[in-house]
Amino acid sequence: MSHTAELIAVGTELLLGNIANTDAQMISEGLSQLGINVYYHTVVGDNPERVRQAVDIARHRADILITTGGLGPTCDDLTKVAIAQAFGKELVYHEPSAQRIRDRFAAMERPVTENNFQQAMLPEGCTVLDNDWGTAPGVAFEAESTHVIMLPGPPKECEMMFRHRAVPYLKALSDGVIASRTVKTFGIGESAAEALLRDLMNSLQNPTLAPYAKPTGTELRITAHAQTEAEAFALIAPVEAQVKEILGDKVIGVDVGSLEEVCYALLKEKGLTVGTAESCTGGLIAKLITDLPGSSALFRGGIVSYTNEVKAGVLGVPQDMLDQYGAVSPQVAEAMARGAKAALGCDIALSTTGVAGPDPDDRGNPIGLVYLGLAYQDQCYVTEFHAGKVARERIRRQSAQTALDLLRRYLTGLL
Amino acid sequence: MSHTAELIAVGTELLLGNIANTDAQMISEGLSQLGINVYYHTVVGDNPERVRQAVDIARHRADILITTGGLGPTCDDLTKVAIAQAFGKELVYHEPSAQRIRDRFAAMERPVTENNFQQAMLPEGCTVLDNDWGTAPGVAFEAESTHVIMLPGPPKECEMMFRHRAVPYLKALSDGVIASRTVKTFGIGESAAEALLRDLMNSLQNPTLAPYAKPTGTELRITAHAQTEAEAFALIAPVEAQVKEILGDKVIGVDVGSLEEVCYALLKEKGLTVGTAESCTGGLIAKLITDLPGSSALFRGGIVSYTNEVKAGVLGVPQDMLDQYGAVSPQVAEAMARGAKAALGCDIALSTTGVAGPDPDDRGNPIGLVYLGLAYQDQCYVTEFHAGKVARERIRRQSAQTALDLLRRYLTGLL
Repeated sequence: MSHTAELIAVGTELLLGNIANTDAQMISEGLSQLGINVYYHTVVGDNPERVRQAVDIARHRADILITTGGLGPTCDDLTKVAIAQAFGKELVYHEPSAQRIRDRFAAMERPVTENNFQQAMLPEGCTVLDNDWGTAPGVAFEAESTHVIMLPGPPKECEMMFRHRAVPYLKALSDGVIASRTVKTFGIGESAAEALLRDLMNSLQNPTLAPYAKPTGTELRITAHAQTEAEAFALIAPVEAQVKEILGDKVIGVDVGSLEEVCYALLKEKGLTVGTAESCTGGLIAKLITDLPGSSALFRGGIVSYTNEVKAGVLGVPQDMLDQYGAVSPQVAEAMARGAKAALGCDIALSTTGVAGPDPDDRGNPIGLVYLGLAYQDQCYVTEFHAGKVARERIRRQSAQTALDLLRRYLTGLL
Repeated sequence: MSHTAELIAVGTELLLGNIANTDAQMISEGLSQLGINVYYHTVVGDNPERVRQAVDIARHRADILITTGGLGPTCDDLTKVAIAQAFGKELVYHEPSAQRIRDRFAAMERPVTENNFQQAMLPEGCTVLDNDWGTAPGVAFEAESTHVIMLPGPPKECEMMFRHRAVPYLKALSDGVIASRTVKTFGIGESAAEALLRDLMNSLQNPTLAPYAKPTGTELRITAHAQTEAEAFALIAPVEAQVKEILGDKVIGVDVGSLEEVCYALLKEKGLTVGTAESCTGGLIAKLITDLPGSSALFRGGIVSYTNEVKAGVLGVPQDMLDQYGAVSPQVAEAMARGAKAALGCDIALSTTGVAGPDPDDRGNPIGLVYLGLAYQDQCYVTEFHAGKVARERIRRQSAQTALDLLRRYLTGLL
């Protein structure tokens, strides 16, 4: 049987524009992976009557209602009270939740006040979703052919509660299990990937194959429905192999993190260190690598050479080379990478030099033209990349990612 | 007369969780500044019947409907058709919009196809909101006591169309004008600012004063309602002066951009150049500065010294200093800043060295302890910053911002 869910977010801060409704995005993506349709999201403020009205509309459009926010003492447990009323349920005292509240306050060495126990008042006969990431418990119940799930609003808490509490509850509503694997790519757009995979996608029913455009690259999600997880993964395996074969070296991995995480893992596995010499990306590659905890074990350092003086003085790019070819040239990309490798004492050095805009450079090189270098041992690869005449931020991001992809290709023997 | 607006976002990609509804956040914040209430947001997919139902519900709850998305040929101008139907309006051919489409394609040297002219079919008697940032024109009209505004969905386009087209239209609906000024701060939390400003806030009716917590710092928005803009700003001026006096040197400016933009303007005004030596921030400061177009005129370069070898070899930090005090020390912060100033040939150099986590360093320095340096002429300031035991990403961001604030303080004579 196919289910339809509707999300109701409760919080005046959303209506004032203080925050975006990222909970809805996270939950929608999760529901789509479970094969549950979502036709509407609603956002409503901390107002009991309007929450009740939103619930009344939603229950006639969907058989699963998921609320976020409006739990906890600061909003008088607004959502819980409104939902209990809408479904004619009493709130009853739930001793295990009261005990969790006592324990939590004891651990913080703070006294419990009476209003904290409001959170232990839960709809009669509900399933309590223990909250290990915050104070307000979540709730799930079925009434009048509708499944209701209430989750806390703070994004991290909401995500943990959704993944670890709501998803198992929702999976139990369907026969069998749903499992998925995500093939991540770099350097191929969503529509190009779709064109290559169209015949395969059309031939499939279970598993299904769907492309997702992410800022970091196109993702292909393979989702199977079966009686057991092992059966689901057995259905996924041959499709995963086909996708990998069709997309070839564009595939950076399956169920992996970002390009920098993939590079990190490869560098660690091979015991190699890395460094950077950045011109147009201005420190972005170094920033992306050092975002990762543990990066100090393999990232030696970086040089942002935003002027020719720094390219010459710190990286040792010959002045006559700069004069002859200009800073945006394959020659300088190579000299920067070699110079960084020597100055930083790393096994591999990446370099970028290009035109991020808003204007062409003084030699007339077009906006979006970038040279990337990768130096190792006494060798150096140089590649020319055209980001096109797009926004500065996008040219910088794409250049940094393309440099990281060059590193991935080198480390996996694709160069 | 007070207005109530409701936002309807049209887009299946929102219901699949591919993107978050950031348009709703941006518009809600803008409406709140105009004193217009928002009680609900609705998100609906690319489905004409469900869009019509969402409009039918919304028009009974609000007198201003703002839609985002569902314009343009890829979705068959879904929103326009559904709205025209809901309000019993014909779509009529609008020659100036057709001409804009012809001109745009001519500029791109691409042939116009017939379906592009669908976009020139607009509800009879509407106000056309010219789109200078994309292809689909926006639309505004009043019918049956409801004001309807349709904006394109892509976030940047939506923001420009809202600010430059919808806001003037909405301002015309109210008596008089609404004007606001935003005092930006750094280094003071929302609740601390609120505590200092509470008496002033409570004493005000027009203008109003409201704090907003942003990732880059607390903002105080002063909003006045008057017959003319000049009168509104005259009401704002004394409150602005009071806020600045109360918050003192935490104020980075009024109606200014980010901290890096404030520093950029100050550096430009004084004709000074800057460079960086980053350890724990790993290139983030360089990245923030070089995000700004034109930064190449005043940013010389940066050195990310993630190992002691690079601190010694490239920045010239004495090895015995590193041995004696460790990399996370005020001495090394100073030597890094001085070394960067010399190596990069800049007027001012910023440095960071600290513990971003997830573990304390090998000398037992706690997570979140960071030393910041600022070298100029033959002087150097060093300051100790405690980010606290928070997430790595937050320690890095706060350290980078605190370093930029040190630069702002130096450039404005506050150090």
